[in-house]
Amino acid sequence: MAKSLFMSIATLVILNVTGLNLLAADAPKANADRMEARIIGLGEFGKNADGGVDRVAFSDADIAGRNHMIGLMKTAGLEVHVDYAGNIIGKRAGKNPALATITFGSHIDSVPGGGNYDGDVGVMGALEVVDLLNEADITTEHPLEMIIFTAEESSMIGSRAFTGDLSKRTLDSFTSPGDRRDGLDRIGGDHTRLKEVRPTNPVHAFVELHIEQGGILEQKNLNIGIVEGIVGISTWPVKVEGFANHAGTTPMPGRRDALVAASKLIIAINERATRMEGRQVATVGRIEAFPGASNVIPGTVEFSLQIRDLDADKIQHLFEVIQQEAKMVEVEMDVKISFGTSGVPAPALTDIRLRNLIEQSAKDLGLTCQHMQSGAGHDAQHMAHFTPTGMIFVPSRGGISHSPNEYTSPQDMANGADVLLRTILKLDETIFTEE
Amino acid sequence: MAKSLFMSIATLVILNVTGLNLLAADAPKANADRMEARIIGLGEFGKNADGGVDRVAFSDADIAGRNHMIGLMKTAGLEVHVDYAGNIIGKRAGKNPALATITFGSHIDSVPGGGNYDGDVGVMGALEVVDLLNEADITTEHPLEMIIFTAEESSMIGSRAFTGDLSKRTLDSFTSPGDRRDGLDRIGGDHTRLKEVRPTNPVHAFVELHIEQGGILEQKNLNIGIVEGIVGISTWPVKVEGFANHAGTTPMPGRRDALVAASKLIIAINERATRMEGRQVATVGRIEAFPGASNVIPGTVEFSLQIRDLDADKIQHLFEVIQQEAKMVEVEMDVKISFGTSGVPAPALTDIRLRNLIEQSAKDLGLTCQHMQSGAGHDAQHMAHFTPTGMIFVPSRGGISHSPNEYTSPQDMANGADVLLRTILKLDETIFTEE
Repeated sequence: MAKSLFMSIATLVILNVTGLNLLAADAPKANADRMEARIIGLGEFGKNADGGVDRVAFSDADIAGRNHMIGLMKTAGLEVHVDYAGNIIGKRAGKNPALATITFGSHIDSVPGGGNYDGDVGVMGALEVVDLLNEADITTEHPLEMIIFTAEESSMIGSRAFTGDLSKRTLDSFTSPGDRRDGLDRIGGDHTRLKEVRPTNPVHAFVELHIEQGGILEQKNLNIGIVEGIVGISTWPVKVEGFANHAGTTPMPGRRDALVAASKLIIAINERATRMEGRQVATVGRIEAFPGASNVIPGTVEFSLQIRDLDADKIQHLFEVIQQEAKMVEVEMDVKISFGTSGVPAPALTDIRLRNLIEQSAKDLGLTCQHMQSGAGHDAQHMAHFTPTGMIFVPSRGGISHSPNEYTSPQDMANGADVLLRTILKLDETIFTEE
Repeated sequence: MAKSLFMSIATLVILNVTGLNLLAADAPKANADRMEARIIGLGEFGKNADGGVDRVAFSDADIAGRNHMIGLMKTAGLEVHVDYAGNIIGKRAGKNPALATITFGSHIDSVPGGGNYDGDVGVMGALEVVDLLNEADITTEHPLEMIIFTAEESSMIGSRAFTGDLSKRTLDSFTSPGDRRDGLDRIGGDHTRLKEVRPTNPVHAFVELHIEQGGILEQKNLNIGIVEGIVGISTWPVKVEGFANHAGTTPMPGRRDALVAASKLIIAINERATRMEGRQVATVGRIEAFPGASNVIPGTVEFSLQIRDLDADKIQHLFEVIQQEAKMVEVEMDVKISFGTSGVPAPALTDIRLRNLIEQSAKDLGLTCQHMQSGAGHDAQHMAHFTPTGMIFVPSRGGISHSPNEYTSPQDMANGADVLLRTILKLDETIFTEE
């Protein structure tokens, strides 16, 4: 079920299946109160004093939250199992077992000091879809799978394993949340069998509902974002080398201050990324001066440069412009500037047919929408290289995420679940011509 | 013996004392080889792999080095005792016990990863003076005291205690080298009796020989620096507050990036300090961005601002100029910038009579010299508030200090010792009129 099989084919074949009543204008809609109550219920696991949540992957809070979700999924009639990567998978049989599986879901792990909506909204939206199907007594043609991916906020370990893209390097990272192999085993996975995680049965598509984590939908007063793709993220370590010296005995002229040089480059990065046409962003988020004492002129400064865009060529072009700026700073300030190797989550485009289904679903429901890129990473970016993938955004208040102040209204969540359900039902009516 | 007693009186009374033969043109000179050998010998205590020394105050290496020096001082016939602040004091009786004591010395503790010349040259120069007096069989009129101050590189604990200027805050600091009260007791002091350290017998003057720690003497090919004073050092914590947000989902326009704002201010600080007439310096040596992740726009940046000058008004003026720059950055970048309270080692001027004696001594010896400020702090800055104080600089190769690459040639060290001896002998001939 490699992506290439699908991407060249844009024609759809419409099947005649059940579930049509939920596509009717007067069909039952997602229950906003139920979704809100479930969000609050899940928020108890890892709840912190700031009103947010600390539910980092593999933590006790994560494990408790996972067990809570497994219970809810079983109550909804799903046949639940945990794969070797700890992904929680709830199966709902289809009428035609020969058809490929329609998958949908998100994650419930959080960043440290995170909020209650990032990931959780997509999971509760998926569960709402199952409940709505149950309540309407509908069996789809295709088998369905609701998936809660493991450790999205910690290198997306679950979706990487699911799509066969989990490297030893990712597993070796101890940055967060400690020993990842041990963590996988603790949540019911088996780190020695990760190569067996990738499904061997065919997958029809994947759809993820998620909060926008940006402020565009709110600012434009729109209900739904149709995600064109997840931006590529290139992050370079940058090193500026001047000459460390005594801050008292070294006159101002002739100093080779690495921090003054770094400051010039940081401003240039910001200006170039801002002035260039397009949606690219460039950020310096981390900086350290060495030796780092108030009475020593910094001899070395290290900082991170991160560029994101949906177009890999655009990332490269902006990087080259920044390298030119660095050369000018080198000459002006008598320093040496070097760029390390960038990490490369490449841009991941969603499937154009899925975008169309999502757009049509939103319009059917009378919801306003626009196409947009996702500046944040998501499990969907790995799924997009594995199966036709679509992604639905709902508004984030103030564009805030990864914070206790993260918030999406119950109605926005319900809108998202409605679009997710409709998209799945339309997918169920559809067979991509190779199948 | 408060400084104020002396500073208003510039007239000198010449006494007729011994030691004149060492002021003669053909008198024996300091032994450069002996000084070099002693520097290398002391460098064994705390020697590190980089060819430098880790002899942080109160460490085992410091204690071993102190014992080594006590041995050398006793061998030179000094009557050695350790005061309650751990200062090592070697007394040499004068002919006239009623006269005030002439003091001279420096320190032997180092910064972590320091060199073999900062402090050590002044101590070995002081010892050389004692040896030269011994070899010429000279007894001065005034009693002499060679002093090795405690923990110069850790808040100058010894000279602060000696001059009655040691605060609880300084003692409470754990930044380096751990519990300071415990450290004082470990080196033979008594932290419960620090108020008794300040001498009650009269002190005639203090003279310190030290390496320049800057590159001015070397660049101008001069032998001796006559220190006009030790610069005041004001260090402010600066906080820039913008708004932390997702580096992927937040478009470039509308970002309130605290690091871009901080960069603009850092450049302005550098330019203003450079363009202003005078010898002031301003340095940003430490910086931290919060939350400090490559994928988050910095919401807060904290950095240090340090300004040094011999004139406190100049420091204040430059600080006000920088505050104006900060106001402009606040408006341009939509951030808030605040300055904390500065630490205040005020500028400390040396005694003009001592400067003249040092200059005359250098010229008598055929050495080239110039008046200059000390951009670095020294024990002499505390002594200057206590007794007429002079300070002699010798060149530092490449202006480097606080580094294993620190170096001063044997001949430069010997030149410094010769000027120190001559200055002490001239002081011995002199009585300030109040005594």
